[in-house]
Amino acid sequence: MRIAKPVQRVIDCFSKLPGIGPKSAQKLAYYLLHVPQIELDNFALALSDLKRTTMLCQECKNVSETDLCPICNDSSRNKKVLMVVEHPMDLLAIEKSGRFNGVYHVLHGAINPLENIGPDEIFIDALLMRLQKNGGLIEEMIIATNPTMEGEATAMVILNKLKKLDMKTKVTRLGIGIPTGADLEYADELTLRQAIDGRREL
Amino acid sequence: MRIAKPVQRVIDCFSKLPGIGPKSAQKLAYYLLHVPQIELDNFALALSDLKRTTMLCQECKNVSETDLCPICNDSSRNKKVLMVVEHPMDLLAIEKSGRFNGVYHVLHGAINPLENIGPDEIFIDALLMRLQKNGGLIEEMIIATNPTMEGEATAMVILNKLKKLDMKTKVTRLGIGIPTGADLEYADELTLRQAIDGRREL
Repeated sequence: MRIAKPVQRVIDCFSKLPGIGPKSAQKLAYYLLHVPQIELDNFALALSDLKRTTMLCQECKNVSETDLCPICNDSSRNKKVLMVVEHPMDLLAIEKSGRFNGVYHVLHGAINPLENIGPDEIFIDALLMRLQKNGGLIEEMIIATNPTMEGEATAMVILNKLKKLDMKTKVTRLGIGIPTGADLEYADELTLRQAIDGRREL
Repeated sequence: MRIAKPVQRVIDCFSKLPGIGPKSAQKLAYYLLHVPQIELDNFALALSDLKRTTMLCQECKNVSETDLCPICNDSSRNKKVLMVVEHPMDLLAIEKSGRFNGVYHVLHGAINPLENIGPDEIFIDALLMRLQKNGGLIEEMIIATNPTMEGEATAMVILNKLKKLDMKTKVTRLGIGIPTGADLEYADELTLRQAIDGRREL
């Protein structure tokens, strides 16, 4: 027995999403059959409007509804400190911490040779242009790419390009160590090694 | 920082789906920002067409594109054996097993007093009318509701209603026992008890 075509179509769409397997996709499609038509139409509209009504902020490349995103537009933010993140969701995580009042630069990825993502596929050049344009205004750049192979490679590439430009911006990296609530016993060697190197005086 | 409205709208839609938490919904929405517009439009169309282009089969209440679903319309299926299932996905699971060549009746739920689902909220009356209409044609009815509290209650209600109608249809229930590949050690008592009661001669 084949599944009714309209249901199969919805299953196929869900299956393409990351983290949703064929079984979950089926469950979702059959669930939606019991949802009011108005909600389905709202969902449909939200999807087709998603990219049409958003853009990347001219300055920081975060997803925005306006040319300049609310953070770049906010005069109370410290424009002298710039944090470089891989993804818009990383930016949200930092914002939630409430500890950062500077501005951001979203790379939209990290260098990953296995997936054919080189320095030109992410917004590294835009970052360097922004630094040059702003001259000495930016005093510190915090590279907050993920502490993974890809994130570290990206950080290194940015640092090297910056050196070639002979910029005097101070460059820092987010502290790497054991996360709160974790157990030393289960921490991996690399994290432990970096936690020892990055020890602080109390 | 609030998330751009069009992104938030998509996050809200995904969050309403079963099994998708707020974090996954966020991940999916940001993922979709990198998908071509044509795919988003296809997804949107599939969603808004889902209910508009499907109906319930007049006979068995399975989701169908036509008045009669492909199974009820199939002359090679044995119309004398009827299997009662809770959901369309249960029907698909039975079809996959390849062991059943009869027809189905989909209840679209099980009796669940806690969720205000009584016998009138699911297609029990339609089932009884179908049995009466077909007179003695249906020789066996296999009640394949889930072996849960709700499924068992539903099976009992159907059986009682059938007795009142003085129908002579043979009523059976799917075998309950230890699933293949499972471990006796971890089987619950009820399953073990039913597996012992339902033991077969080799």
